[in-house]
Amino acid sequence: MSLEHYISGYVDGEGCFNVSFSRRAKMKTGWEVKPSFSVSQNEDRSQVLKIMQKYFNCCTLRRDYHDKTLKLETRQLNNLTEKIIPHFLKYPLLSNKKRDFALFAKVCQIMASKKHTKKKGLVRIVDLAFQMNSSGRRKYSKEEILNSL
Amino acid sequence: MSLEHYISGYVDGEGCFNVSFSRRAKMKTGWEVKPSFSVSQNEDRSQVLKIMQKYFNCCTLRRDYHDKTLKLETRQLNNLTEKIIPHFLKYPLLSNKKRDFALFAKVCQIMASKKHTKKKGLVRIVDLAFQMNSSGRRKYSKEEILNSL
Repeated sequence: MSLEHYISGYVDGEGCFNVSFSRRAKMKTGWEVKPSFSVSQNEDRSQVLKIMQKYFNCCTLRRDYHDKTLKLETRQLNNLTEKIIPHFLKYPLLSNKKRDFALFAKVCQIMASKKHTKKKGLVRIVDLAFQMNSSGRRKYSKEEILNSL
Repeated sequence: MSLEHYISGYVDGEGCFNVSFSRRAKMKTGWEVKPSFSVSQNEDRSQVLKIMQKYFNCCTLRRDYHDKTLKLETRQLNNLTEKIIPHFLKYPLLSNKKRDFALFAKVCQIMASKKHTKKKGLVRIVDLAFQMNSSGRRKYSKEEILNSL
């Protein structure tokens, strides 16, 4: 069993790479950048999430009592850059989601170099993040963030 | 790229093995058994469906204008028994869906031996099919079918 390819296939269908933004007065730019990788699944089909948690050697498993799903997730930058992103570089997605992944990987790369703490880096991240397919769940518009800087 | 394992992962997340029943006066039993394998996807992520269609060397791709999805599907027994089922026997699913697949494979096996055209075989198929996770879309109840025989 080539688990690596199986996981890429599963995530291509069910996974989500996301970059969200929160207002945070403490930050120099006024904004916190929050990248996340997640996979949601009905609780009765949780095996694959547990297999992935073990495989990635990171991520939390959390019940969403609201919609009765179990969510595998990591928001920690070092997990994303050292565990999640390298996997999908080696075992690529095949659908359009690979485009989202590429944008996501760039955002994480900028964050790892700390450039997101300055205006120029944040503008670049906002530009990348708003090219991603966000399933329409964005709290702030691109203009709202850029105009506030 | 190990496409075989990737496809099993993708289908474990997004695919569906289903056995439905239709009243059919022409049939000796009064019922037609309709097994199907399908994978639905938003049209903007149709690449994987096209890759799978080529890989399986069967299945149709059909637009569902209602919910704007593209559906890869085969209902042909010989495709199911010669192409689809052998793939998932060789590259198994890892989630609970593997249980549905095993029941589905048994139903197709019974159909391949033509036993479903007699009452005893049909009763066995109904018993197997109603153990599958049907996402609550069944038109007829198990009792309704069995009582009509």
